[in-house]
Amino acid sequence: MEKLYIIKVGGNIVDDPTQLSSFLQQVGEIFGIDNSNLNNSKCILVHGGGKMATKMATSMGVEQQMIDGRRITDIETLKIVTMVYAGYINKNIVAQLQQYKCNAFGLCGADGNTVLAHKRNSKDALGKENDYGFVGDVDAVNTTLLKNLLELGITPVIAPITHDGNGQLLNTNADTIAQEIATAISTFYETILIYSFEKIGVLLDITDENSVIKEIKLTYYKELNEKQLIFAGMIPKLENAFSAINKGVSKVIIGNAEKLKSLINGDAGTTILNG
Amino acid sequence: MEKLYIIKVGGNIVDDPTQLSSFLQQVGEIFGIDNSNLNNSKCILVHGGGKMATKMATSMGVEQQMIDGRRITDIETLKIVTMVYAGYINKNIVAQLQQYKCNAFGLCGADGNTVLAHKRNSKDALGKENDYGFVGDVDAVNTTLLKNLLELGITPVIAPITHDGNGQLLNTNADTIAQEIATAISTFYETILIYSFEKIGVLLDITDENSVIKEIKLTYYKELNEKQLIFAGMIPKLENAFSAINKGVSKVIIGNAEKLKSLINGDAGTTILNG
Repeated sequence: MEKLYIIKVGGNIVDDPTQLSSFLQQVGEIFGIDNSNLNNSKCILVHGGGKMATKMATSMGVEQQMIDGRRITDIETLKIVTMVYAGYINKNIVAQLQQYKCNAFGLCGADGNTVLAHKRNSKDALGKENDYGFVGDVDAVNTTLLKNLLELGITPVIAPITHDGNGQLLNTNADTIAQEIATAISTFYETILIYSFEKIGVLLDITDENSVIKEIKLTYYKELNEKQLIFAGMIPKLENAFSAINKGVSKVIIGNAEKLKSLINGDAGTTILNG
Repeated sequence: MEKLYIIKVGGNIVDDPTQLSSFLQQVGEIFGIDNSNLNNSKCILVHGGGKMATKMATSMGVEQQMIDGRRITDIETLKIVTMVYAGYINKNIVAQLQQYKCNAFGLCGADGNTVLAHKRNSKDALGKENDYGFVGDVDAVNTTLLKNLLELGITPVIAPITHDGNGQLLNTNADTIAQEIATAISTFYETILIYSFEKIGVLLDITDENSVIKEIKLTYYKELNEKQLIFAGMIPKLENAFSAINKGVSKVIIGNAEKLKSLINGDAGTTILNG
């Protein structure tokens, strides 16, 4: 099967023009028109939101509501994230990738019905009311469309906005979108999911940058988790990773976006594997 | 040859949710999955900007600079129009069209290098310096990509933002984009260009809504123009129309967006033809 890389790039990288440029240049070098090193492997990029939406909301006097530390996507916030994520960030990434000879094409979940979602149920499992507003949970990924675009030599660049099929846009977590796309499309490609951000990988000792764990299989993860050796903030990413692997993704790589080439070559970051 | 409709919808319609909805519903009925009346004719939608960008700029304290009544696109204004045109407006149109069973896909000129432009030369023909800022004049339309998308059953929805191939986004007039796409793609399709907006067509008497001119050929246009019977605001649209027809577009229709079906059937608006 042909190789397909689903690369999620995190918000802190998106916020930093220098780091973002360095990352995008590597995407161009690996997946651009002139690429030769990866046997024409294909790529889908998913980007996070960054802090620009919050800054915009502040400058426009839109108050951010929170429940238990989570931001509520009210109608004004949805407007802003649609503008910032699917407009400003998405189009600037695309224009830069075009400069780096990568045939990027920006989209959100509404475009071509790529990612269909539903507004999150406001009642949680315990029956508690938590209305997160216009937040979408993914129902379906249009793999036919993504395959068609990839076969045209296009690199889809996906903003974390989805729709419900009834005209409503929704705010959806970019990690989740990357994982849902990766698992859905793994029927057609040997799929490698990369979570790239400002950190260098999963650390055995959070205070020691040299303690990156090179490889984690499920049994080792359980062992580490029992001993509470995994940094809490990394657990959702690892849970996502194992869930993706269970559903057909061949491996997940976690590491620094500015080291994309090394991540892909296996020379940096943490690789999560089956077994 | 297969028929292709390039439909430009103007800013005042985009600003009015009711009129926009009525227009988009007709696009869905004509070009959606269930369409039957137009022998599977294809469609590309180009939308204008509307007043939201100006409102946003005001609420963010970004001052609008003007030269001779024209807005200057400085770097802050470019940010705002990218967010509003390619983000908010584009994605809301796409989500609504998806609701109306039209497989819409939003893009700007940077996506897939669809519309390549260059920053407008700040010296005009008379050598006068007029720096309009980040305004793009169109160099090339990627007809191969647009054809590929159309053949996948996609209705491209284009925001009036282009790029220069070197990572710079540019603000470009939507009428011009529609015309450039129509002329470039007329090699492959029988192309009909529609300028739809809040007005009902070209009027013989500006004070009489019943004086719509049904058909204008070049000789008649010259005659009307010599007698100064054409409303000044309509002249650039008509000049654009004749220029498009000279370059291969089969006809241009000007009229009310809410009467899209009638415009296409020839029961409303003004049709501009060769001869």
